[in-house]
Amino acid sequence: MDITDWRHKIDELDRRLVELLNERAQAAHEIGKLKRNTSMPIYEPQREKKIFENVQRANRGPLPEGELRQVYERIIDVMRNIQKNEIAPSLQATDGRTEFDREVND
Amino acid sequence: MDITDWRHKIDELDRRLVELLNERAQAAHEIGKLKRNTSMPIYEPQREKKIFENVQRANRGPLPEGELRQVYERIIDVMRNIQKNEIAPSLQATDGRTEFDREVND
Repeated sequence: MDITDWRHKIDELDRRLVELLNERAQAAHEIGKLKRNTSMPIYEPQREKKIFENVQRANRGPLPEGELRQVYERIIDVMRNIQKNEIAPSLQATDGRTEFDREVND
Repeated sequence: MDITDWRHKIDELDRRLVELLNERAQAAHEIGKLKRNTSMPIYEPQREKKIFENVQRANRGPLPEGELRQVYERIIDVMRNIQKNEIAPSLQATDGRTEFDREVND
């Protein structure tokens, strides 16, 4: 394979990564809806710890553990920010926004 | 599906994400090897631009474009740092390290 071939492979991997990231956000959204209906706390630090443990256990390399963790910190951080932006307006309950990503860091 | 079911789904998605991130790093490593053999420049900003375009085009939501870009900035940033750490030692050519990730941001 030449460089063009490898770049096509990376582009394909990126498209699959984008799809999985969106599936993850959607699943977290579903959890957020369930939490609201059952009055569960929105933030659960033990759950976040388990996410990192799962990710590290799944890592077969060549990405070093620390670098993979950095990527996951961003993923969780981004999803937490979306959650914050969604929760604040919904407290006013008058702005017509959807409740998507009320709890997306699950 | 209850919360436990959704969390199992997220854990499974994370394991697939970890696998793809590692495949991506490996492919970038292969490009790095080819670049060294053909004296191509290591950093190509146009390629990075195309990566973001590809990612944004692939995005079907619900992740907003800006948040997806933040995740990708971290992915590229992490891989660029690995590259820097690998290139500097290899210039000395005496430390016995592998050349993995000489150019991992491709």
